[in-house]
Amino acid sequence: MITSIHNPRLKRIRQLLARRETRREEGAFVIEGVRLCEEAAAGGWEFEFILTAENLSARGQALARQMASRGIDVEAVSAELLNRAADTETSPGILAVLRFQELALPSSPDFLLICDNLRDPGNLGTILRTALAAGVQGVLLTRGTTDAFAPKVLRAGMGAHFRLPIRDTSPEDLRALLHQPDKPLVLLAADAEQGVSCWQSDLTQPLALAVGGEAEGVSPEVRAIADGTIRIPMPGGSESLNAAVAASILMFETCRQRSR
Amino acid sequence: MITSIHNPRLKRIRQLLARRETRREEGAFVIEGVRLCEEAAAGGWEFEFILTAENLSARGQALARQMASRGIDVEAVSAELLNRAADTETSPGILAVLRFQELALPSSPDFLLICDNLRDPGNLGTILRTALAAGVQGVLLTRGTTDAFAPKVLRAGMGAHFRLPIRDTSPEDLRALLHQPDKPLVLLAADAEQGVSCWQSDLTQPLALAVGGEAEGVSPEVRAIADGTIRIPMPGGSESLNAAVAASILMFETCRQRSR
Repeated sequence: MITSIHNPRLKRIRQLLARRETRREEGAFVIEGVRLCEEAAAGGWEFEFILTAENLSARGQALARQMASRGIDVEAVSAELLNRAADTETSPGILAVLRFQELALPSSPDFLLICDNLRDPGNLGTILRTALAAGVQGVLLTRGTTDAFAPKVLRAGMGAHFRLPIRDTSPEDLRALLHQPDKPLVLLAADAEQGVSCWQSDLTQPLALAVGGEAEGVSPEVRAIADGTIRIPMPGGSESLNAAVAASILMFETCRQRSR
Repeated sequence: MITSIHNPRLKRIRQLLARRETRREEGAFVIEGVRLCEEAAAGGWEFEFILTAENLSARGQALARQMASRGIDVEAVSAELLNRAADTETSPGILAVLRFQELALPSSPDFLLICDNLRDPGNLGTILRTALAAGVQGVLLTRGTTDAFAPKVLRAGMGAHFRLPIRDTSPEDLRALLHQPDKPLVLLAADAEQGVSCWQSDLTQPLALAVGGEAEGVSPEVRAIADGTIRIPMPGGSESLNAAVAASILMFETCRQRSR
């Protein structure tokens, strides 16, 4: 039972929650809540340890017992201390430290998503969640994009992180990934104002779709290697969509075209 | 110049930000930030007064001068006091109290959106923003839906509130709105699991699209008066989309079908 806020595990949790560099250096990250812990366990991710508090739901307690019986270190902590260490305002009473794991990209993918300069964590998480539902085979993050393993991204992702290959990439990596000798991918960059209507574009060909952040859109570096630009026509006359909404509409337009 | 946190205007702002009942009783609400103030002014909404702080941007200062020259009461307040009164963590240095205004619904609409039991303010705001872009002619909110004029909804709406008719409605109101003698609307309820694929549904007919919250979806009351159920096919095998994402995909599938 942890009884002090100076406990090394709580200290480590605060650092892993706060700093991307710490997550990278240590190859670990933190998840909170019963659902994320369930999804991570179902996906076979490696748990370092789990902390549980007295306010944990019955469903969460059953999960903790199950994990303990598999040999995972489950330790108790007061809800008050967990709240102070955790990222959420009111902790759901369960938190875990997980080891990073790199899920394999398919050898010749035909549906990739590039998140370019996407700075809002909630939007990135929502996009990862949608990408999993849309059957995207991998998500590539450029340098300017917020860390996919930050707490808000994990929360909004609702478990997509444990089933979807996610990669930090440089423009060079990107080029190599797209120019697969047997099946090259077409790179289309989303734009708020210009380009071919997504309803007129052929999204059935092997595709890497690049979406940008709300303020600046796709970066000049990614535009430079794109094969074309697509936009979502907006009959309402407003020129503004949330970045996660725009990315989701384009991913599911791809699904629609491929379902025919 | 306001110099005390007990100033009646700051008190009123805190109440209008915190309580739906106060907003309804007083027929007023609060917006923060330069962009929302610009959109409200462009839409011709009535300002009660504006507060500005020393950290306001040059663009915001120009707006404040312009509003003052139109006879609107613009008062100065310290950034510290404005931060304490405002809803955002760091106030952008401008805040306004506006009078409610009811925008007219078209006499025979053919694209309405019903938000049913949608409790998340960020999702509701994002949906309003998308609805404006998609050319939705009015958004109807059922009783269980969060207040559209709460601060988080206004922020995520990015000005859609000032151009889009928004109505609180009972199931009876809804029935009356749908059964227009000259052009009745078809009510389709979105569902995560069952119903006709949105790609197979005819969304070109006069349509009221009902979307629900993430946990429970569309309520039994609205299902009872719906003409059909539609779903978004998810090739990735995950059965989970963010509520605003799902609503947005359906609105833009409607746009696509109508653009042909």
